[in-house]
Amino acid sequence: MATTLRTSEADFEERFARFLTTKREVSPDVDAIVRDIIAAVRERGDAALLDYTQKFDRADLGKTGLAVTRADIERAYQEADAATVEALTFARDRILAHHKRQRPADDRYTDSLGVELGSRWTAIEAVGLYVPGGTAAYPSSVLMNAMPAIVAGVPRLVMVVPPSGGTINPLVLVAADLVGVHEIYRVGGAQAVAALAYGTETIRPVAKIVGPGNAYVAAAKRQVFGTVGIDMIAGPSEVLVIADGANDPDWIAADLLAQAEHDSGAQSILITDDAAFADAVEAAVERQIRLLPRAETASASWRDFGAIILVGTLDEALPLADRIAAEHVELAFDGAEKFLQRLTNAGAVFLGRHTPEVIGDYVGGSNHVLPTARSARFSSGLSVLDFMKRTSILKVGPEQLRALAPAAIALAKAEGLDAHARSVAIRLNDG
Amino acid sequence: MATTLRTSEADFEERFARFLTTKREVSPDVDAIVRDIIAAVRERGDAALLDYTQKFDRADLGKTGLAVTRADIERAYQEADAATVEALTFARDRILAHHKRQRPADDRYTDSLGVELGSRWTAIEAVGLYVPGGTAAYPSSVLMNAMPAIVAGVPRLVMVVPPSGGTINPLVLVAADLVGVHEIYRVGGAQAVAALAYGTETIRPVAKIVGPGNAYVAAAKRQVFGTVGIDMIAGPSEVLVIADGANDPDWIAADLLAQAEHDSGAQSILITDDAAFADAVEAAVERQIRLLPRAETASASWRDFGAIILVGTLDEALPLADRIAAEHVELAFDGAEKFLQRLTNAGAVFLGRHTPEVIGDYVGGSNHVLPTARSARFSSGLSVLDFMKRTSILKVGPEQLRALAPAAIALAKAEGLDAHARSVAIRLNDG
Repeated sequence: MATTLRTSEADFEERFARFLTTKREVSPDVDAIVRDIIAAVRERGDAALLDYTQKFDRADLGKTGLAVTRADIERAYQEADAATVEALTFARDRILAHHKRQRPADDRYTDSLGVELGSRWTAIEAVGLYVPGGTAAYPSSVLMNAMPAIVAGVPRLVMVVPPSGGTINPLVLVAADLVGVHEIYRVGGAQAVAALAYGTETIRPVAKIVGPGNAYVAAAKRQVFGTVGIDMIAGPSEVLVIADGANDPDWIAADLLAQAEHDSGAQSILITDDAAFADAVEAAVERQIRLLPRAETASASWRDFGAIILVGTLDEALPLADRIAAEHVELAFDGAEKFLQRLTNAGAVFLGRHTPEVIGDYVGGSNHVLPTARSARFSSGLSVLDFMKRTSILKVGPEQLRALAPAAIALAKAEGLDAHARSVAIRLNDG
Repeated sequence: MATTLRTSEADFEERFARFLTTKREVSPDVDAIVRDIIAAVRERGDAALLDYTQKFDRADLGKTGLAVTRADIERAYQEADAATVEALTFARDRILAHHKRQRPADDRYTDSLGVELGSRWTAIEAVGLYVPGGTAAYPSSVLMNAMPAIVAGVPRLVMVVPPSGGTINPLVLVAADLVGVHEIYRVGGAQAVAALAYGTETIRPVAKIVGPGNAYVAAAKRQVFGTVGIDMIAGPSEVLVIADGANDPDWIAADLLAQAEHDSGAQSILITDDAAFADAVEAAVERQIRLLPRAETASASWRDFGAIILVGTLDEALPLADRIAAEHVELAFDGAEKFLQRLTNAGAVFLGRHTPEVIGDYVGGSNHVLPTARSARFSSGLSVLDFMKRTSILKVGPEQLRALAPAAIALAKAEGLDAHARSVAIRLNDG
């Protein structure tokens, strides 16, 4: 049974505030271990990667090599289910089409004083993409993380994936190939992050590392940050479904469970204005949960973090939704568009009764890497912009310099920076 | 004397690679102290702020109050030099005009299948701006950090500034008022960051914290990251000047010193293809440095981190500049535009002989908060985008769902996520 909150109750604000700050993740402190791994990779290079892969993944890179070859990828296509490859290709094409629209425009203009200004976007020169091994190896995540980099024009996109127990999910290799990843290496964990950040004999360093991973990978990304860029550290997934009583309770229950099955730390929240509907959804959840192969995970998530919030009217849901700032928000009621216009904090919004969040996970075309743990208040889902950087441009001639100089010199002097003032003033004697 | 490197020498690559990895900053480990300060502010709120401000800033908030009032700001205008206020206003207007061009466009469209997709940008609901006290209180930095937030439409921009020794630089208050900062509090250090992240009786929490600060502020920002967003942690400033022999050595020397006077960890680099010009610049630096009030700082920076790199042709400078990835790059030679087109890594580029970097610090219009320490390889200067976030939008009707469902279900099953597959399949019986 999930938690139930009612806005009509006197202690609602207190309970809701507590609900918002509930931690859903225990991060083990692996900083010291990770520090040692990074130091070893910096010192011993490929040899350290071989040792750690033997130890953690029980795989012998001496036999397979570190680099995944073209032949390995062809073999993956052979091993993969043809219908799934077709589905991946369909998803790839839709994700490509959407992300092409995110490419930023350069700007260059001359203002009224004759000063030329500009902003120019360029792709990051090399990006590393971490892909987890084992059961967490999701080919859809490879598409979602790699495609924005390719659309950005990143000339060198390097994927690392641990060969857990000696093998890599063939669909992960197929997904990487479908997007156009340039290099793939059989290595995971903190050692892979270290190799991407500092380079080894085989793996040249990159400038930014993205992609999900376990506590070791997250700690390693934090430690190499600065030397390279990193993306957000993702927490457990979450969905907020706002639904009126006109929905089919089974549909909404299915959506809540799709989130809950991800992880015992995942969170599914229903806000509704219909108490009978809430009961029906809760009953449907209990019914459906038993049918799931991942019933144990989904049950733990729903029991520990699931919530049903009963509101007087759906208007009351708006400030609550902004405070929850969920990764995924489904708006399953008439008037969803108007509600969306007033909603501020959400990673992604799914409109209407026929847009389950799962469509966005795979084939909607938008990115499924989205801000978790209330970070939609201040951050965005993964996009092409995450793989580019902006250089600002300034060009001033002698005449413009004379127009700008007095203010620049005044401010430099007010800030006690005489060499700044001098660098402008010295040019004023000219032409 | 700065370091001299010549591409013609056999050990150039080795020396250049070592030069690139030189650390220019020692970050004292203040994590434990900062952790205690944050805990105290979370527990004791305003009372903790009063105590720490008494202790660290020797200022009695019991007398002045925590909040800066309208009367305080009017007094600051009275105290400020009128010409400097005019210069600040001139700079404000130019920065405003440039940043207005950075506002991102929303996108909403229907694709060939009839699926509606979109991206919507909204301002972050509340932002905290840290402004250092004492000599590091730069009014120009207040303009540069606050303006993009205002242009983004942030409805609540909260400035904190320590009342070092009891006072706040009136120009800092004037700059804040000129941009339109909504709230100002007399508090600094880790305690201010804690107040912004968690809130106290007087200061409501924000969703993101930006602005430069000392080691305590930087450590506090890192510790509250996740609860709120933060900007990049800025390192010491740097300039790379690429210049041919046709420049006036005194001008280029002045530019190198404008950077060096900032901080003993600042870095000024000259790349030139003219050995005699290099010598002339070096002599001019030595001559000018003695005239500076901040001669000690500038000398330390130039001696420890300054560099002159002699290249055979300016074309050789291109890959070196991309590897240096400097915060500021001056291109003082004919053909600078063509060079810029091929340059990848630079925070900001200043074109031609009449665009000293200092113009960008104050009145160019572009932002002076730029990526340091080689992070221009993967990040950008501060912009309006840093104060907004993007929500992605997806809307699917019954017909589109039928078109998308097979691929979504196939991928969900391939990933072992049955509840995902079910959330799509359950809707197919409809309509």
